[in-house]
Amino acid sequence: MNYPTRTQVAIIGAGPSGLLLGALLHKAGIDAVIVERQSGDYVLGRIRAGVLEQVTMDLMDEIGVGARMHKEGLVHGGFDMLFQGQRHRIDMNRLTGGKNVMVYGQTEVTRDLMDARKQAGLTTIYEAANVAIHDFGAGKPRVTFEKDGKSHELQCDFIAGCDGFHGVCRDTVKKSAFASAIREYEKVYNFGWLGVLSDTPPVHHELIYVNSERGFALCSQRSNTRSRYYLQVPLTDKVEQWSDQAFWDELKLRLDPEAREHLVTGPSIEKSIAPLRSFVTEPLRFGRLFLSGDAGHIVPPTGAKGLNLAATDVKYLSAALIEFYQDKSEAGIDHYSERCLKRIWRAERFSWWFTTLMHRFPENGEIGQKLQEAELDYIVHSETGARSVAENYVGLPLDFGT
Amino acid sequence: MNYPTRTQVAIIGAGPSGLLLGALLHKAGIDAVIVERQSGDYVLGRIRAGVLEQVTMDLMDEIGVGARMHKEGLVHGGFDMLFQGQRHRIDMNRLTGGKNVMVYGQTEVTRDLMDARKQAGLTTIYEAANVAIHDFGAGKPRVTFEKDGKSHELQCDFIAGCDGFHGVCRDTVKKSAFASAIREYEKVYNFGWLGVLSDTPPVHHELIYVNSERGFALCSQRSNTRSRYYLQVPLTDKVEQWSDQAFWDELKLRLDPEAREHLVTGPSIEKSIAPLRSFVTEPLRFGRLFLSGDAGHIVPPTGAKGLNLAATDVKYLSAALIEFYQDKSEAGIDHYSERCLKRIWRAERFSWWFTTLMHRFPENGEIGQKLQEAELDYIVHSETGARSVAENYVGLPLDFGT
Repeated sequence: MNYPTRTQVAIIGAGPSGLLLGALLHKAGIDAVIVERQSGDYVLGRIRAGVLEQVTMDLMDEIGVGARMHKEGLVHGGFDMLFQGQRHRIDMNRLTGGKNVMVYGQTEVTRDLMDARKQAGLTTIYEAANVAIHDFGAGKPRVTFEKDGKSHELQCDFIAGCDGFHGVCRDTVKKSAFASAIREYEKVYNFGWLGVLSDTPPVHHELIYVNSERGFALCSQRSNTRSRYYLQVPLTDKVEQWSDQAFWDELKLRLDPEAREHLVTGPSIEKSIAPLRSFVTEPLRFGRLFLSGDAGHIVPPTGAKGLNLAATDVKYLSAALIEFYQDKSEAGIDHYSERCLKRIWRAERFSWWFTTLMHRFPENGEIGQKLQEAELDYIVHSETGARSVAENYVGLPLDFGT
Repeated sequence: MNYPTRTQVAIIGAGPSGLLLGALLHKAGIDAVIVERQSGDYVLGRIRAGVLEQVTMDLMDEIGVGARMHKEGLVHGGFDMLFQGQRHRIDMNRLTGGKNVMVYGQTEVTRDLMDARKQAGLTTIYEAANVAIHDFGAGKPRVTFEKDGKSHELQCDFIAGCDGFHGVCRDTVKKSAFASAIREYEKVYNFGWLGVLSDTPPVHHELIYVNSERGFALCSQRSNTRSRYYLQVPLTDKVEQWSDQAFWDELKLRLDPEAREHLVTGPSIEKSIAPLRSFVTEPLRFGRLFLSGDAGHIVPPTGAKGLNLAATDVKYLSAALIEFYQDKSEAGIDHYSERCLKRIWRAERFSWWFTTLMHRFPENGEIGQKLQEAELDYIVHSETGARSVAENYVGLPLDFGT
């Protein structure tokens, strides 16, 4: 098989960021090739987020792949917060003047984007080994990789680093002439999320965020027949320690009696422990290389912001590249970092805050626990407090603060 | 001089809590004697808070001592937040549907209450040495003290501990049969406030809360001719290190150009460094002893909540005692702790949060700083964020969350 040796935009990574960007560029008549280290099945097998903001839904519609999402996705107008044994509903829809989120798994988003890309005959090179990026500081960036036992080179105008937190793009910047220009901000939480996916009906028609004496829990879902549950666990825990039975037993202990009674358990079809991290790279543009999504920033998953931030990154990046090719203007490119980072830091703040609100932090002492309880109390009893959670959860407007 | 040997309520401490309580009880025909370790002049000389919530103003009016406050106090409908070189006004009045605060020094509140007490011929025993409280677990509490070289005993039905953070009442509980029932929650911040009082016109007609690279500053005031300024300083600083000139120079460096230009400097008439502390005692009632105000809880001064919390404590305590004497019901007494603590924890939360928002915390790292900036950005750009600050600053409604 022959691989293209020249494209306008080389996209590294075929996760949702890369696929969304590819689709947006294709719609504007801009040629892009995606280079992915893993197989398509591997990418689809990664279990990630499942809550889409309006801005992400709009993007799916814009590129014409929103049909299945609208058919199968579940519109949620609120969620429950459970603490001190009581559930309190955050009525997002009412509090934000009609905004909702969509429960639709990242796996499904990826599948829809992959299918559309295949149907349009666009090139995605999966299982590309030793992917490397070169010369993005100058005008002639290149991507090299190995495939089918041969070395390949892809010349391009721009490189989009959509290759995630552990990807090659940010790492290359740190070893390049831009090394002194890049700054990384990081906070690692000292607990993880033990997640279980199971083909059981969700315990509740909406999500339940739980702050219990035994730690955080989240009752999430991917569909009416597929549940996703999480438990706050010490980082030292190994997934092998957690049998399905142990997981369900512990989850039940963190729920209120009603939820405990309605919980349907079953075999896990995926079980894993993920660390929680707040991470931001500044800037997100280095010459002709752009970082998008997890390659540039990570949020703890509590606020369901990861995928949605990636979506706005590529929305801004595609707009910038379209401006470059169609209007011969570099203004969008020049503002990419700043534009993204404003929204990123807002989402980082909310995700950090919501994480600190809902998890247990013994290191903050007894007064820390009491202050957290007072904050929960304030939020559910003040219309303003509840609205503050709601407006951040559904996603601040794109023009916020401008 | 003869001192009373019997009263219904013995009040320990003649600060605003004790004086307010004395006035409320007197109005209801309940006899109370105040015993104070210091002289009246000493109490008046303590420079404390200067921002009254509506609930505190109402209490002053209720006992008929609000006239000078309304005449000389300054009604503030908003305050400025200065960060990253920009000032943003929090329009409390608009955001809370018409609520304001009153700038009127605690010294003035105390003076008005002292004057009224004197005029009513009520007993306040100043400069009482070795004040001790006894037998509050049983039905016959006693207060002993020395005065004019003699030992005195005051028998009473109840003791109100209004004697501040370092007072004898809480300390006695910890050495009593109640020792195992008392819990203290504490957080000490690792910086202090260097405060200067000066007879100069305030730099701005409202307060300015400053988060600068060099640390927190607050431009407060007591009247149109008396200013109160604060600087965040290391706890290791000694007040002797800070000349007036050094204070004004540092303050100017933390202000925006406009404020810097308008700042009128002058000799300090008081200068001190105070530590910042979050502290709550639970419960606040031990048999026939009640803790009110600073004796039971301390907030960092950032949210101006200390005096206002004391006012609600004594409002609830006087209501409970009146219920006891007039209706022969112990219900109010039994609920005193819980009723106060709900409001206290809410104010503790706000004071802690506002403190963490406006001060510098190098120990939180670079990402901590960025998250703080994102929070400031959210608050001033979101109507909901701004309203959340405003509704807490003016004081949550007394029936909040009930």
